[in-house]
Amino acid sequence: MPLTPEQQSEIDAQRAQSNTTMRATVPGIEQHMYTAHPVLDHGFVRVIDYMGDDAAICQAARVSYGKGTKTITNDEGLIRYLMRHWHSTPFEMCEIKFHVKLPVFVARQWIRHRTANVNEYSARYSILDREFYIPAPEHINAQSEVNNQGRGDVLEGDEAAQVLEHLKADSSRCYDHYEEMISQDGQAGLARELARMNLPANVYTQWYWKVDLHNLFHFLRLRADTHAQFEIRVYAEEICRLVADWVPAAYGAFSDYRLGGANISQRGVEALRRMLQGEEVDAASAGMSAGEWREVCGVLG
Amino acid sequence: MPLTPEQQSEIDAQRAQSNTTMRATVPGIEQHMYTAHPVLDHGFVRVIDYMGDDAAICQAARVSYGKGTKTITNDEGLIRYLMRHWHSTPFEMCEIKFHVKLPVFVARQWIRHRTANVNEYSARYSILDREFYIPAPEHINAQSEVNNQGRGDVLEGDEAAQVLEHLKADSSRCYDHYEEMISQDGQAGLARELARMNLPANVYTQWYWKVDLHNLFHFLRLRADTHAQFEIRVYAEEICRLVADWVPAAYGAFSDYRLGGANISQRGVEALRRMLQGEEVDAASAGMSAGEWREVCGVLG
Amino acid sequence: MPLTPEQQSEIDAQRAQSNTTMRATVPGIEQHMYTAHPVLDHGFVRVIDYMGDDAAICQAARVSYGKGTKTITNDEGLIRYLMRHWHSTPFEMCEIKFHVKLPVFVARQWIRHRTANVNEYSARYSILDREFYIPAPEHINAQSEVNNQGRGDVLEGDEAAQVLEHLKADSSRCYDHYEEMISQDGQAGLARELARMNLPANVYTQWYWKVDLHNLFHFLRLRADTHAQFEIRVYAEEICRLVADWVPAAYGAFSDYRLGGANISQRGVEALRRMLQGEEVDAASAGMSAGEWREVCGVLG
Amino acid sequence: MPLTPEQQSEIDAQRAQSNTTMRATVPGIEQHMYTAHPVLDHGFVRVIDYMGDDAAICQAARVSYGKGTKTITNDEGLIRYLMRHWHSTPFEMCEIKFHVKLPVFVARQWIRHRTANVNEYSARYSILDREFYIPAPEHINAQSEVNNQGRGDVLEGDEAAQVLEHLKADSSRCYDHYEEMISQDGQAGLARELARMNLPANVYTQWYWKVDLHNLFHFLRLRADTHAQFEIRVYAEEICRLVADWVPAAYGAFSDYRLGGANISQRGVEALRRMLQGEEVDAASAGMSAGEWREVCGVLG
Repeated sequence: MPLTPEQQSEIDAQRAQSNTTMRATVPGIEQHMYTAHPVLDHGFVRVIDYMGDDAAICQAARVSYGKGTKTITNDEGLIRYLMRHWHSTPFEMCEIKFHVKLPVFVARQWIRHRTANVNEYSARYSILDREFYIPAPEHINAQSEVNNQGRGDVLEGDEAAQVLEHLKADSSRCYDHYEEMISQDGQAGLARELARMNLPANVYTQWYWKVDLHNLFHFLRLRADTHAQFEIRVYAEEICRLVADWVPAAYGAFSDYRLGGANISQRGVEALRRMLQGEEVDAASAGMSAGEWREVCGVLG
Repeated sequence: MPLTPEQQSEIDAQRAQSNTTMRATVPGIEQHMYTAHPVLDHGFVRVIDYMGDDAAICQAARVSYGKGTKTITNDEGLIRYLMRHWHSTPFEMCEIKFHVKLPVFVARQWIRHRTANVNEYSARYSILDREFYIPAPEHINAQSEVNNQGRGDVLEGDEAAQVLEHLKADSSRCYDHYEEMISQDGQAGLARELARMNLPANVYTQWYWKVDLHNLFHFLRLRADTHAQFEIRVYAEEICRLVADWVPAAYGAFSDYRLGGANISQRGVEALRRMLQGEEVDAASAGMSAGEWREVCGVLG
Repeated sequence: MPLTPEQQSEIDAQRAQSNTTMRATVPGIEQHMYTAHPVLDHGFVRVIDYMGDDAAICQAARVSYGKGTKTITNDEGLIRYLMRHWHSTPFEMCEIKFHVKLPVFVARQWIRHRTANVNEYSARYSILDREFYIPAPEHINAQSEVNNQGRGDVLEGDEAAQVLEHLKADSSRCYDHYEEMISQDGQAGLARELARMNLPANVYTQWYWKVDLHNLFHFLRLRADTHAQFEIRVYAEEICRLVADWVPAAYGAFSDYRLGGANISQRGVEALRRMLQGEEVDAASAGMSAGEWREVCGVLG
Repeated sequence: MPLTPEQQSEIDAQRAQSNTTMRATVPGIEQHMYTAHPVLDHGFVRVIDYMGDDAAICQAARVSYGKGTKTITNDEGLIRYLMRHWHSTPFEMCEIKFHVKLPVFVARQWIRHRTANVNEYSARYSILDREFYIPAPEHINAQSEVNNQGRGDVLEGDEAAQVLEHLKADSSRCYDHYEEMISQDGQAGLARELARMNLPANVYTQWYWKVDLHNLFHFLRLRADTHAQFEIRVYAEEICRLVADWVPAAYGAFSDYRLGGANISQRGVEALRRMLQGEEVDAASAGMSAGEWREVCGVLG
C-alpha cells in the first residue's frame, strides 16, 4: 500500500485541519482520521468522517434535549440493555464513513450488505492501477475437506509455488493487455468500460463506504467471524479496532452479545437444561443432526 | 413550543460546547445546532448532528484522497452535473440528524419515508405531554371540490368556530381521561401502552430522525410540494432553509432540478416540439386526458 | 369484524377464481386466500397473494435451473442449515401480501419495520369507518411494576369499568364530531385531512402489507415475542399460523432457531461452561447485573 | 447460451406444471415462465415467478376487498395517474423473480441497485463454468472523445483483431490455470475461494434476482437508457419486453412518463416559456453551461 507523494500530501493536508464544532466529538477516533491503515498487500481502510458517540446512542434512545444519561456508567448500562434486547434503532444514530482499497473479489462479497452508501472508483471513467492481491505464502490454502466453502491446510512446495506463479503472471499479463488495449498511442484505444473486463478479480478497487453503527455491527458479526473468507475478515478486524476507539461502550456490548455470544436453538436449550440437571445428552436425544450437535458442543466447550 | 427551563438549559449546555475536530465543518449549519426552530403551534425542528459538506459530495464522487475538486466553482459545477444525471450516491455521503416535535398525524405521513433512521418517544414507557395541534383560523379549510385529497377555501363564521371548539374540547377531554386512567393515586393505574390509545391524532410526539442528503431531498421534493398537506409542508420548508445553510451548492442544484423543475411525459415532449414549431396543440391532439393536459399547460405557463 | 355484504361478495368472487399457472403453488396457503381471519374486536388479516414455497428457498440457495433439492427431506435439511448459519437471502425469495385491518396505535408500531411495502387507506382522501378497538375486560391491565414498558395485573371493579367507559365514550364523541365537521349538509365541510386529527389512536385503519419471508420472520420474532404489546402480538400469532401452512419447513426452522431459541452472551457462555463443569455461578461471578443474570437463568430453566 | 440437456430437461419439467390457484394470474407472462431468453453470447434472463398484475396495483391503491377498479379502462387511467404523481407504493405491490446469467462486470453494475433480493452462484462453494463474454465485432468501440464514460466509433482492422485476440487468449489461459490450481489430481488443490481471483471480469456468473415493480422500473429507467453501458442495456431491454407482457398498463405508463419523458430544470422551464412566446434563448440567457443547454435542446428537438 505505498501511497504516492501526492496522495500522502492530500492526507496530510486533511489531518492538519483543526475545525471548531458543537458536534459530539471523540478523540479516540479523531486520532485515526484520514490515515491509511494497511490491510492485505495493497489495501487500506481510512476513516473519512463519523457522526455521534456512545452518548448519542443514549440521547436518541431517550429522545432527549441534552446529552445521553447523566453518567458514563449509566450510558454503558443502557447501551448493554439496548444491545441485549435487540433495540437496534438507537445504534443507527451513529454513522461512519470509510475510504477502502480492496481486491474486487472482496468488494463483491462486501457489497452484498445493502444497507450502506457506496461510491466506487469508476473503471468506465478512469484507469485502474496496476495493483493485484497476491496472497502471502501462509494464506494459500487447500480446499477444505469438511467445509465446502472453506479452506484447509496451507499449500506447500511446488504446488504453492505454482499457484503464486500463476496468480502473478496472469495478473501481469492481463494488465499489460489492458494497458495496451486502451492505449491511444498510434491507435483509437478501446473504451475503458470494455477493457476493464480483461482484469482478474484480484485487481484492487476503491470506494467510499458509509454505514450506520447498527448495520456496521451486522456486517462485522458476519465478516469478522471465523467462517468468513480470510481476505474480507482482515478488513473487518481492522474496522473492529477503529470502532472500539470510536464508541467503546457500544463496541464492548457488541463484542459480548454478538461477536462472542452464541445462538442456541430451542432443541439446544432443551438439551442444555437436561445437561445442567446431570443428564447425558447426545445428537439423537437432542433431536439434531451430527453436524448441528457438533456445533452446539463447540459452543459449550 | 415553550421549552421548559430544564430543556432550555440542556440546549444551552450543548450549544456551549466547543470541540476541535479534523472533520469537515460548516459554519452555516453550526449556527443552527441544537436550537429549536418553531413549527406549527407546539412543534420544532432541531439540528442535532451532521456529516459532510458540499466538498464531501465531490470527494466521494471522485473517490479522492483529499477534499473535493480544486475550487468551489468546480465543486458546484460537478454537483449540478451529478444532480442532473441522477447520480444519487454521492449525495448519500452527507447525513443529518434532527430532533423533531410534531403531531401524530404528521408523524404518520412522515414515517412512510423508509430510508431514514428513527427513534420515537415511547408512549409505552413514558407519559405524553398535554400538547395538541390546534390549527390557526387561517388554516382551517373546507374539503377541496377539485382535489379529493386537498383543501379548498378557508372556513368562516360559525362553522370555523365549531371546528375549533370540537378540536380543543375533545383533545382536552381525552387527555383528562388519559391522565385519570394512568393515575396511580388510589388505584392501580392503567398501563401506559393502553391508555395512549385514547389520545387523538393531533397530540404531539417527538423523534430523532437521521437521513442522508439524497433521501432527504426525496422527502423534501414530495413534502415541500404544493400537493403536500400544509401541516407537513411547514416542516419540510423549515428543513429546506436549514439545508440551504448546510450544503448551499447541493441545495441550489436540488432547487433548480427537482423542486422547481418539471417532469414531462413522452406525449408532453412531443406536444411541446409541435408547439415550438408554431402548431396549435390541445388535449386530444396531445393524446392526454383533460386533467393531464391542464397539468402540462400549468408547467408551460 | 362484521364484513358488509358487498365486502363479503367481493371476497367470495375472489375465492371463486380458479386460474392455471406454472408457478410454485401451495395448497396449504391457497385454502386461506382472501378470507378474513379475525383479530381483536374489528380487525383481520387476509392473505392476498404469495410467491414461492419451501422448495423455492432451496432453488434460490442453489441458483438452480429446476426446483430445489431432490427430496422434501433434503429441502428441510438445507433450510435448517441456512437458518442456523444466518444465510438470510434465500428466505428473501419468498414473498407474501396481506390485507390487514388494525387499530392506529398498532399500525404505528408495525410500520417501524421498514423493509416491507405498504399501501394504507387514505384518510386524506376517504372517510374512516366508525370502528374503535375496545379491549376485552381480561386485557385491561395495570402498568407493570417491574417492566416500565409492560403490563401488570388485570384491572378490576370500578377502575376497569371506568376505563372501558372512557374509551367508549371518548371514541364515540370524537367520531360524532369528526362526522359533524366533515358534513357538507348545510355547511362547507372541513377537509378530511384535517378532520381526521380528532380521531383517537384506537380507531381502525387498513393497509396492504407485502414483505419477504426473511423480513417477515424478523417481524414475527419481535412481535410474536412475550415482550411485544398484546394488541400487536395477536396479529403476529395469526400470521405465524398462516405462514406455518405456507412454508412448513421454513417455519419449523424459524420456530426452532429464532422463536424458541436463545441468544447467550460471551459472559453467559463462559458462565454456562463453568456450570456444566459443576461450578456454582452467580451474577457477580458471571460479571452480570442482577437483571441480566435473571434473564440468563430464565433461559436455563 | 447452450443449455446442457440436464438444464433443458429441468426447465421443461417446470414448464410442464399446471397448478390451480386463486391468485392473480397473467397469461402474457405465463408463456415466458422458466424459458431462457438469450442475452449476449452466453447470458440469459428467465422468469421464475411473479406476483400481481395491473389490477393488483389498483387494488392496493384503493386498499380494496376485491380486485382493482371496475374496468380495465379505469385501471389504466388510475395507473397513469399514480405514475404521473409519483405514487410509488402501489407499484411495489407487484413482484417478479428472475434467474439471470451475466458477465461479472455487468453483475457489478447491476448489484448497485440495492432494493432487490439476490442469491448469486457461489464461487467459494462451486466451480465456475468456462464461459466468458467476448464482444461481437460490432460492439468493440473506442473510448468516446466527448463522454468520459462512454464509447465512440467501432474499432476496426488490426486493432479490433488484437483486442479480440487478447480477450480470448487471456480468458482461456486464466481459466486453464484456475482449473489447474483447484485440481485435486496429484495435489491438494487450491481452495475455490482463492482460485476464483484469477478469473477476469468477463467470466459469467448467475443469480436469482427478485424485485418489486417500482424498483424494477427505477432499474430499467437507468439501465435501458442510452447512457448505460451496452452490455447491461441489453439485459434491461429484454426485461422491458417481459414486463410489457406482464403488466401492460403499468409498462405503458412507465414508458410514457419515465423512459420517454424528460426532466426539465427550473431554468429550463423558464427558457421554454420564453421560447413559446417567440423569444430567442441561448445558453447564456438561460443561465446554463453549454453542455447543459445542449442537453435541453436535444430534448426539445
